[in-house]
Amino acid sequence: MNDVISGSVGQVRPQTFQCSEPLPLKSGAVLPGFSLVYETYGKLNADASNAVLVCHALSGNHHVAGYYDAANREETTGWWDNLVGPGKPLDTNKFFVVGVNNLGGCYGSSGPNTVNPKTSRLYGADFPVVTVEDWVDAQALLANHLGVQCWAAVLGGSLGGMQATQWTLSFPERLRHAIVIASAPKLTAQNIAFNEVARQAILTDPDFHGGHYYEQGVVPARGLKLARMLGHITYLSDDQMAEKFGRSLKDGALKYSYDTDFQIESYLRYQGEKFSGYFDANTYLLTTKALDYFDPAAQAGGSLDAALAQAKADFLVVAFTTDWRFSPERSREIMTALVHNGRRVSYAEIDSVHGHDSFLLDDAQYHAVLRTYFDEVVL
Amino acid sequence: MNDVISGSVGQVRPQTFQCSEPLPLKSGAVLPGFSLVYETYGKLNADASNAVLVCHALSGNHHVAGYYDAANREETTGWWDNLVGPGKPLDTNKFFVVGVNNLGGCYGSSGPNTVNPKTSRLYGADFPVVTVEDWVDAQALLANHLGVQCWAAVLGGSLGGMQATQWTLSFPERLRHAIVIASAPKLTAQNIAFNEVARQAILTDPDFHGGHYYEQGVVPARGLKLARMLGHITYLSDDQMAEKFGRSLKDGALKYSYDTDFQIESYLRYQGEKFSGYFDANTYLLTTKALDYFDPAAQAGGSLDAALAQAKADFLVVAFTTDWRFSPERSREIMTALVHNGRRVSYAEIDSVHGHDSFLLDDAQYHAVLRTYFDEVVL
Repeated sequence: MNDVISGSVGQVRPQTFQCSEPLPLKSGAVLPGFSLVYETYGKLNADASNAVLVCHALSGNHHVAGYYDAANREETTGWWDNLVGPGKPLDTNKFFVVGVNNLGGCYGSSGPNTVNPKTSRLYGADFPVVTVEDWVDAQALLANHLGVQCWAAVLGGSLGGMQATQWTLSFPERLRHAIVIASAPKLTAQNIAFNEVARQAILTDPDFHGGHYYEQGVVPARGLKLARMLGHITYLSDDQMAEKFGRSLKDGALKYSYDTDFQIESYLRYQGEKFSGYFDANTYLLTTKALDYFDPAAQAGGSLDAALAQAKADFLVVAFTTDWRFSPERSREIMTALVHNGRRVSYAEIDSVHGHDSFLLDDAQYHAVLRTYFDEVVL
Repeated sequence: MNDVISGSVGQVRPQTFQCSEPLPLKSGAVLPGFSLVYETYGKLNADASNAVLVCHALSGNHHVAGYYDAANREETTGWWDNLVGPGKPLDTNKFFVVGVNNLGGCYGSSGPNTVNPKTSRLYGADFPVVTVEDWVDAQALLANHLGVQCWAAVLGGSLGGMQATQWTLSFPERLRHAIVIASAPKLTAQNIAFNEVARQAILTDPDFHGGHYYEQGVVPARGLKLARMLGHITYLSDDQMAEKFGRSLKDGALKYSYDTDFQIESYLRYQGEKFSGYFDANTYLLTTKALDYFDPAAQAGGSLDAALAQAKADFLVVAFTTDWRFSPERSREIMTALVHNGRRVSYAEIDSVHGHDSFLLDDAQYHAVLRTYFDEVVL
């Protein structure tokens, strides 16, 4: 009862899709077979017209909504639970919602920390570099498995939005709506530069052992911590950092040492420490490469207009004013190319102080836009 | 002859100022004595009214102009040689120009890589954390040594500009002009955050050994490389990176590995590698702390207006449109506080694509502003 009132999908359990077919990857490598861990919320309707795929970003996973443990609910709640549930903007009374952990992930899907069937050892650095296109190919096989021929919608924020975009290019007939939030048609040199510093932090950590650290009983926690600290700077807006932390001191006075002087240092160290305790460094590396490589225009002579000519879905593109990782300008590039192609596209630029992270938060205006859009999706 | 034509001050040699007086530091620590390495260009006039002090930024030093080795001129030229020399904007035919390596530096002035007289071993991590105020105090003792009671001007870019500002507060009667370029009245939370990631990269490098790495025969090169790579991202503008590197590939095709795919990666790795080969990690740490701590308003109840009320110098404040490390907005804060105090202040906002690094380059408009300003300094 509480769950209904609070709009939670309630207690959930992940499932596993085992695919024994070989999956050819964009790199030329072939995965001999793979597993995808996923969750579903709501019920697939009779003609399978109400399925919505949620794609995750850099550090996300398949656990989108609900919780695993009622006794430990807050800690085990899905990362987009504010959006997905009965009566929520993506309403599970209407839609059958699917969350999936991508290939190369570290939450149970085939990835560096799973067993390589060829060697019976953990893949580690031998797990191939995967791309957004590869992820979408694998997600399409999951869709087959679930009996979903055509998604009502595919959505995601940031890197998740890139997957939604890629769906419209790889399988134009297999989705009716693409919802692309806080995303970009490709990374800039500055975006790649930040990713490269994060990668070098991991790759040069002596505990990385060429990506085969599992066997050494260590993890490159120092490198992963640095990567996450750096990431956090790009997720928050300058203004929000100024407002939330400013130059506030942690302990009231400067210490004249390398101990923590400012609150912002304490916050970043804490975030980095926490992340390096649960996330996998090889997955972090793979995922930043998928980000760097995504560039649909490159395969269409450099023209985003030409690349998106294949798309058949309707689009909702959402950007946030203070997002400097993927600024509204980047979303407008996507919107403009869609307009040039005569596609139906809605564009919302949300006034938010929370920078790139806004896509995860339950800003009223933002959620109202999504609610309205989903309400109008005809099944 | 060639030197006169090219406007070079010619071959130069650093000198050393030994001060045996104890120097009390802002932290409460006391340096029992210290050395400052410096260079001078041009001639001090009879009434010592033509002296100009150039303050360096994070990775700079005393070698501002001229060269050390005629046979190896390009590699041994000073970092602001485009600005300082006979006939150049800061004209050594008119001015006696002084460059100094700050306390805590790694170019010969007392710092972590010099001998601690108390222990007869290298200071390493025992060198005290020094501040902009401490630097200015030490520079004032150098001024005494040189017979300079009042500088015609003190100038610097970035952290150098903070020293110029601090001169007007610590010794308001001892300079007539302060030239504050690409600077800020204090760091924001985001600025501090970037510094903190850089510091953590160094502090967590296993070769750091608590700052006593010299004795171990190693240097924390991995950490210092990461710090410099990250720094470089903030020195360049997003637009300039896009223009210079964009998504250009280093070897024509994606590699599907963690080898270098993009030119920007190659550039950053090269810059990081080079820097970690000559700069000292302890000095990097100290200098980022000096940046973080600089906040004259904090000692005046949080009011920059109140802090700058002590200043008596005339000011030139210069900002660059694409500088996102210290944006023009930050320079305008300084300018506005000076105006509120009725000070004479000129403000120039230079249209440049080169971001924070612009202050080091010889942009025509920028140099014209400096030339005009220095031409009008009455001796």
